[in-house]
Parts: sequence; structure tokens; C-alpha cells
Amino acid sequence: MPVTDTETPPVAAAEAILRERLAQLESRVAELEARQPEDRVSMVVFSGDLDKVLAAFVIATGAAAVGQEVSMFFTFWGLNALKKRSQLAGKRLFERMMAVMSPSSSLELPVSKMNYFGIGAKMLRKMMADKNVSSLEEMMEMARELGVKMVACEMSRDVMGIRDDELVDGLESGGVGSFLGDALDSRATLFI
Amino acid sequence: MPVTDTETPPVAAAEAILRERLAQLESRVAELEARQPEDRVSMVVFSGDLDKVLAAFVIATGAAAVGQEVSMFFTFWGLNALKKRSQLAGKRLFERMMAVMSPSSSLELPVSKMNYFGIGAKMLRKMMADKNVSSLEEMMEMARELGVKMVACEMSRDVMGIRDDELVDGLESGGVGSFLGDALDSRATLFI
Amino acid sequence: MPVTDTETPPVAAAEAILRERLAQLESRVAELEARQPEDRVSMVVFSGDLDKVLAAFVIATGAAAVGQEVSMFFTFWGLNALKKRSQLAGKRLFERMMAVMSPSSSLELPVSKMNYFGIGAKMLRKMMADKNVSSLEEMMEMARELGVKMVACEMSRDVMGIRDDELVDGLESGGVGSFLGDALDSRATLFI
Repeated sequence: MPVTDTETPPVAAAEAILRERLAQLESRVAELEARQPEDRVSMVVFSGDLDKVLAAFVIATGAAAVGQEVSMFFTFWGLNALKKRSQLAGKRLFERMMAVMSPSSSLELPVSKMNYFGIGAKMLRKMMADKNVSSLEEMMEMARELGVKMVACEMSRDVMGIRDDELVDGLESGGVGSFLGDALDSRATLFI
Repeated sequence: MPVTDTETPPVAAAEAILRERLAQLESRVAELEARQPEDRVSMVVFSGDLDKVLAAFVIATGAAAVGQEVSMFFTFWGLNALKKRSQLAGKRLFERMMAVMSPSSSLELPVSKMNYFGIGAKMLRKMMADKNVSSLEEMMEMARELGVKMVACEMSRDVMGIRDDELVDGLESGGVGSFLGDALDSRATLFI
Repeated sequence: MPVTDTETPPVAAAEAILRERLAQLESRVAELEARQPEDRVSMVVFSGDLDKVLAAFVIATGAAAVGQEVSMFFTFWGLNALKKRSQLAGKRLFERMMAVMSPSSSLELPVSKMNYFGIGAKMLRKMMADKNVSSLEEMMEMARELGVKMVACEMSRDVMGIRDDELVDGLESGGVGSFLGDALDSRATLFI
């Protein structure tokens, strides 16, 4: 089909159509980009068992080491891993009972199986040291240095009456919304 | 390069190439859109412990409140949270034993640690009430109102001989395929 | 607007702009494609409880059956599900103690609740057989046939002194990096 001056308007029209399709596609791609997961791993640390908390920190430091943002949301028994001491003064009866019966720091966490009043936990720590595996406390320090975000669940803290001065430094505080904010944009989510 | 009438065919050809590139891109974007996760959170509730089931419902209602579709797939002990009573008539021996030894409603769920024959669970419920945190039953009601989908695992029900009239109303029934159907399109997946 | 030869350069310029926008979009789409999850499900199998390991394999075989790649990363107690025997010779004291106190094959796994020295596990196996549900061992075989990837955690093996000849055949060995490599590209991730 020979093209003449009088036929150029269709060319302009065709171009306008292309531009429109392109604009629509650009907006769809922008939408996809906005919704795509970030380089992020999010986990709930519900358990306060040494073995499970160890697994959480192995994954957290491993993910941070390969460039992922990592969010750890500590709730319920998981808060025991973040304690530096237990205080009883000013607490209600049940809060005091809970404090007395719970580990007062990561060093006192039991193992989930074969704990035998703490012997299992000591044994696991010894076996890890024998193989030159970092201790939980070293992994927590490493996580901190790698910028892993550690959030203490507000509701659990409130229910159990755990105060700021019972927890280690450098924590954020947040509710389930804080967890979800990170989890929904994550490439992997775990409940530990 | 001066453009003359005799050179317009290349312009048309160039445009055809653009149109073709655009069409290919549109189909790639459509493919990406089809595969992108929905606004959905899926979880397996395997545990029948009060503290873990509470965590599941806190996350479920929290996610529903920020506009996510939520699917909860209750399996094994998790089914205990959905019971309204235990019936023994018409069950096999092991099914009766399982029914007798299991909680017959969410109100009887134990806690995963320090349960002490139910005292731990009562203590946790009291501590939550003291801080005006909704009870598990209130959260379940809220989840229902927010449209959270609760599925009772068919295989677990079958193995344990749990019948329809032992479970609360408003549940869906489904197998692992039902869970996977939702989980594979989710932004976050959890095993609780 | 009449188009003449002298006005064609703008047409070529407009086309160049379109081409440039298209190229940018193509590169953004390629980036989205590279980052989108694969058809893959990844799980950590931390637990060595029969009921939880069963849940893991039900999900794994179900996912493989609908065309997903599946990666199972066995760590800590989860390794017990992969044992074929326990050996004591050549092990350190704690490693021997751990071996003696742990199940020496999937057939000896306890249940997480109401185990009563193994009676609970036998009861669950019997109830499953009564309803024609595959046994754990059959599911593991099925997983293998469906190409499910099973990885034995190197660090756990090292810490517990578990040797190759204690584990079933056909396993891969890997660390947390191996898990993350699959998990970050997965559509669903679970910690069991």
C-alpha cells in the first residue's frame, strides 16, 4: 500500500494507539512492581525453646547474610529469648508466677525435647561448642550486627506484664500489624 | 536521513515491529499478573494448644482487618479448636479413646507449656481478660464476621472419626488440595 | 496538521521515543520475571513427631502432585524421620546418649501429644490404616517418586554426630543456604 501525504493521519493515529497501549502496560507493570515481594524474610518466633530459637536465628542470620531484610516478631514464649532478667516487684500475682516459672534470659531456655530439667539444653550447648557452632547468644549478636529487626510483641508483653527493663536493648515494639506489614511483602514467612 | 514518500514502507515496518514487541510484552505482563499472589494469607492450624490457636486467630483477624483474604486450614489437634462437643456413640474404640482424651471445645484447650492440668490455660485466659484482650471465642467470632475461611481437614476428621455434629457451624471441609489452592496464591503462609 | 516530508523527522523521533519506552518496559518486565516465585513449595521439617512429619509429607506429596517443585529441609529432630538405624561406635558420649534416646527410624517416631510411651503413635498408625490412609513410610516413598527434594541439614548432622550410614538413601546434604536458596523462590514456605 503506497503511503502518501494524505494517508499520514492514520500513521499518527496508529502511533497514538501504540502510545496508549504502552501507557496502559506501563501502569500494569508499575502495579506489579508495587506488589512484588521485597527481598525480605519474616518470622514469628512463638517458641521459647532453645532448639527452635536457634533454628530461627540460623535462618535469620543466613538470610541477612545473603542480602535479605529480616524481621523477627517475638511473641508468647518467644519473648523469653529476649529477656535479660526477671523482675517481680510491681507485678500482679499471675504475672509474678509466670515470671518465676519462665526462663529469665536466653541462657536458661529449655530444649523442646529431652530437656530433663535443663540437662538437655546444657548438652545441646556443649555439643554445639564441640563442633564450633556459634552459641545462641553469639548468633543473636550477629543478627543485630547484620541489621535483623527484632520486634517484641506488645500484646504478649502486656498480657504477661513484661517490662522494658526486663528485655535486652535494641528491640522494637509492635503488634500484629507490624508483623503483617513486613510479612505481606516477604519472599518467605515462617511461624517458629 | 531525509525521509521521502518512497521510504515510508520502512516506517510502517518499524511500526509493525513495535506492535509485535508490544503484543509480546502484553502477554508476558498478563502471565505475571496471573501468577502474582493475591491479597491472601493462608495458614495450617495443626496445633490444638490454646496459646498457638490464639496466635493463629490474632494473625488471621489482623490480616482480615487490613484487607487480606484469610484461609485457615485446621488439621490434627487443631480440629479441637473447632469442636462444640464430643460424641462417643457410633465410634470405634480408638476414635472413642481419642474423643475422651481430647478437649471437646475451644474452652478446654490446654496451653503448650506450663498447662498443669488446665491451670495454665485458665491463668492465661484470666491474664488476657485482665488486660482487656479478646478471648479466643470472641476472636473466632470476629474472624467469622471478617469473612475468614475456616476449613476442617477431611483426612484428619476421617482418621479421628470426628463428625459434623461435633464441629461448630460455618466451616468448610477440604483436603490438602484445598489448602494448597489458597496457599500457592498467598502473600504469606504459616504452619502453626 | 498536514504532514509533509520536512515534518517526517518528528515522526521518526516519536517512534524512537516509543522504542525507548518499550525497551525500558521490557527490562522492567524481565526484572519482574526474574524475581517472581517459581512453582515451588519449601519447608523446614524441624519436628520429629510422627503427626507433624505426616502433615509435612501430606503437604509435600500434595504439592508435588499438582506440579510444584517441593523442597524439604530436615533439621534437628526432623532428622529422626530420615534414619534407618542408630550407630554408637565411634561417637562421642553426648552423641551416643542422643542416639540412644532418639528414634532410630521413622517407625519409632512418637506423636507430639498423648504419646504414652509409643502407644499414641501406634494408635494413630492403626487409625490411619483403618481408613486406608497411606502410612508415613508409603508417603515418603511416594514423595521420592514424585521427585520431592529431601535435604538433611549439615549443621544438625554435625552437632548430633549423625553419619551417612545412619540415614536412608537418596538424600541431599546442605546448610541453611540450601534451604534459603529454594525458600526465597517459593510460593509457599512452612516451618513444621
